Amino acid sequence: MNAARTTAYESLIQRERERALLNATAGLLGWDERTYMPRRGVHLRGDQMALLARLSHERLCEARTRELLLQAEEALADSPPEDPRRANLRGVRRQVDRAVKIPSTLVEAMSRAVTLGQQAWEQAKQQHRFADFAPHLQTILKLKREEAAAVGFAEHPYDALLDEYEPGMTVRSLRGVLADLRDELVPLLSAIIDKTKSDPAAAPDVSILERSYPVDRQKLLCQMAAASIGFDFQSGRLDETAHPFCSGQGPGDVRLTTRYNEHHFSESFFGTLHEAGHGLYEQNLPAEHFGTPLGQACSLGIHESQSRLWENQVGRSRPFWDYFYPLVQRLFPESLGGVDQDAFYRAINDVRPSFIRIEADEVTYNLHILLRFELELVLISGELHVEELPAAWNEKFKAYFQMTPHNDALGCLQDIHWSAGLLGYFPTYTLGNLYAAQFMAKAKQEMPDLEAWLQRGSFQPLCDWLKREIQLEGQRFLAPELGVRVTGETLSHRAFIRYLKDKYSPLYGLA
Amino acid sequence: MNAARTTAYESLIQRERERALLNATAGLLGWDERTYMPRRGVHLRGDQMALLARLSHERLCEARTRELLLQAEEALADSPPEDPRRANLRGVRRQVDRAVKIPSTLVEAMSRAVTLGQQAWEQAKQQHRFADFAPHLQTILKLKREEAAAVGFAEHPYDALLDEYEPGMTVRSLRGVLADLRDELVPLLSAIIDKTKSDPAAAPDVSILERSYPVDRQKLLCQMAAASIGFDFQSGRLDETAHPFCSGQGPGDVRLTTRYNEHHFSESFFGTLHEAGHGLYEQNLPAEHFGTPLGQACSLGIHESQSRLWENQVGRSRPFWDYFYPLVQRLFPESLGGVDQDAFYRAINDVRPSFIRIEADEVTYNLHILLRFELELVLISGELHVEELPAAWNEKFKAYFQMTPHNDALGCLQDIHWSAGLLGYFPTYTLGNLYAAQFMAKAKQEMPDLEAWLQRGSFQPLCDWLKREIQLEGQRFLAPELGVRVTGETLSHRAFIRYLKDKYSPLYGLA
Repeated sequence: MNAARTTAYESLIQRERERALLNATAGLLGWDERTYMPRRGVHLRGDQMALLARLSHERLCEARTRELLLQAEEALADSPPEDPRRANLRGVRRQVDRAVKIPSTLVEAMSRAVTLGQQAWEQAKQQHRFADFAPHLQTILKLKREEAAAVGFAEHPYDALLDEYEPGMTVRSLRGVLADLRDELVPLLSAIIDKTKSDPAAAPDVSILERSYPVDRQKLLCQMAAASIGFDFQSGRLDETAHPFCSGQGPGDVRLTTRYNEHHFSESFFGTLHEAGHGLYEQNLPAEHFGTPLGQACSLGIHESQSRLWENQVGRSRPFWDYFYPLVQRLFPESLGGVDQDAFYRAINDVRPSFIRIEADEVTYNLHILLRFELELVLISGELHVEELPAAWNEKFKAYFQMTPHNDALGCLQDIHWSAGLLGYFPTYTLGNLYAAQFMAKAKQEMPDLEAWLQRGSFQPLCDWLKREIQLEGQRFLAPELGVRVTGETLSHRAFIRYLKDKYSPLYGLA
Repeated sequence: MNAARTTAYESLIQRERERALLNATAGLLGWDERTYMPRRGVHLRGDQMALLARLSHERLCEARTRELLLQAEEALADSPPEDPRRANLRGVRRQVDRAVKIPSTLVEAMSRAVTLGQQAWEQAKQQHRFADFAPHLQTILKLKREEAAAVGFAEHPYDALLDEYEPGMTVRSLRGVLADLRDELVPLLSAIIDKTKSDPAAAPDVSILERSYPVDRQKLLCQMAAASIGFDFQSGRLDETAHPFCSGQGPGDVRLTTRYNEHHFSESFFGTLHEAGHGLYEQNLPAEHFGTPLGQACSLGIHESQSRLWENQVGRSRPFWDYFYPLVQRLFPESLGGVDQDAFYRAINDVRPSFIRIEADEVTYNLHILLRFELELVLISGELHVEELPAAWNEKFKAYFQMTPHNDALGCLQDIHWSAGLLGYFPTYTLGNLYAAQFMAKAKQEMPDLEAWLQRGSFQPLCDWLKREIQLEGQRFLAPELGVRVTGETLSHRAFIRYLKDKYSPLYGLA
């Protein structure tokens, strides 16, 4: 490797770091828009976001970037595959190749389509009028097909879309994993439903979670819970918003959001654990690699695995509540003073078919995703026409959940994703659940005392394990490879199903 | 004018708008840094700010910008002088000419010097060790002299620095106005001091402002006061910070900050009125000209006139408190229940020499500025050596205030400005006070019922008058010309002195 070529790598990284600063700035503007921005600042903010997106995209596609990338690739061609610089070059190459393939006319058309699409969706949802949204969805699907064609794919156009969120994942492997999952989930859910029908006492009393939980004390609890599992408040914050999210700007600045409902304990508490799970990933990315692929999260699925792990695998477990329940009881004596820990534990683990994905429990959640994945596939391929979507949704819903949405707001209009052009995104939620189960199973295997530690409120060992095994790796590996390296196993439904059965069979007294 | 040339103007404006979006983004990052940013986000934030500043500066100096500017100037050379496009071209020309004259090596050297300078200043101030800051001030002064030489000036290098903050103002005119002001202020202050010495009962009881004022109620009051005078909370916010400021991002997004001290009524209340005065200016700039000189405030002096007008001319007046006092009394019955309005009015208008500029009253405030202006002139010219500064400061201070600072933290180390390279900035504070008095005198003349309206809490007519006469004009005129157009008079000390005498002679029972 000669000195001039090393410079190409350095220059490329320097450019990528600047692009990352622009993206981090857009991230802060987005956070502000959803937390503190005055209502009438929305037009200015739209202009700012569009400019930053354009500047970042222009830099990525610039001839000079591609030139430096080629030079750097040549220079490092003979270095060992585990050279971190090669991982960075692979990551930049992936982004550049995708970006330059998509014509800027398509980018602009999509930007317009999703702006109009989200407005139409919001109205259509409010008024339960799918027909008003249908033409927008038609346009968005057409553009997503064009995007898939431009990017290229081996088997299914959906592969090209999925690849943006979950590099290395394909329709073929996803189909297999999700079919296995479905074949186990459907009978498990039926067994739980049948049990609570035949024995109503088997169903938890969820009303205890709907008593009064003063918001100021919820705030204290959420801050404390996030800090307890390792979220660093010197490098982050927790604020309120309407639709919670986590925004990682970069080293030293990661922001969580949640929302408080005085009459619902779970919303803010599990929401905060979820976002703090994302936040821990962001805080534990290697700061020295900021702005390069090695400093970024592996994939959306792996990101979601971290949030689901803390929210569910830890946050809805008995050991966690052995530690937290006395504390929560002291914080809300009016509502929980007379509720024993077992009743509370059962209430936060209530399984019940419901129409809305984001309110779903651990057992039903992935069926919501399966349904969307199956519909997305046929919408993108054109096998399902947009106007047939509501009926197709309701039919599938009935098959999985044994009930039918009363209207499209409870059905195919409930999520923002399609109106925002996020086709191929939903499966990453289920990938998150599956990876979370595999990671947690492995962690328990490697740390036999883990549950005892959680019972004592000692979260650091798990936090450190996740940091070392997953978070510090950045994008060194694609998600499927990372999964194998951490757990020794390929992605599968097995760990997750085992986890559900081990937990819910005793909880519901199933045979 | 031909079509191609009109296009040059349009293209230039388009570029300027994008630059304004970058600047607005830097503005939001700055606001966030001082309100909500987690402590450890400071390095990332520094990198973001530096990148945005560089991008904005590069765009301004780019050959293409200068080419378009020249073309547009030629195309519009024959259009009438009142053509708003010509005002925009004058404004852009001013900025471009200044920016291209300053070599980027100097910009970088200054950026480094002020980063180091501020760190050194903070420490030196804490430890009362001027000597530790002296070499930094030496460097900064050297660079400011280089900047002045690069920019060019007719009479005094200080002219070149002043021009950045107050275009059109010169040392020559400033010297005249400030000398007149000093000749009136010094005897007025002496009279007040003598009076309170000979008759201690003439001094207000300021302890009533140091009773308990619970912060939550102060917050309510500040929000209400800002909204009452016209600040639009759908297009703005009020947050807490350590060193209050107003940050106008652009149309629909203007942010005020203040700080609350449970044992001081005035700090948050008058601070909020002050920032809201700035905020009203920002909110009332013509949105259609956003990103161009016509959409920006005229000068720092005019900006300060708006904050001082609401803080002092209105906020410390009897009519204002005729309306507000009953309300404030009801809000803080424990502390003000037994205090009559006159005692309160006198307390908030206490005149008393003090060491610290930002705590100074209306009479003494401008003497603090005079002193700084006189010292800045001889520091820049080199007539005063840095090591002589503390002694020179104390000597002048004694002459104006009849007392000597106990240490340099109470003297020449108290302000951040010099360490931040802001030489030429201080006089704009006094210009603000003078313009405020001239504007208010004119407003009263044009609206004979103004005081009666203020007594009834009707602030809209004054708000509208300021908007129409001053704020909507943006940078159509330089400050001196705007002043004449609004008041019919050139800048002078007379309105301000008349205001002080009319107010303080009866208040202190002066002859």
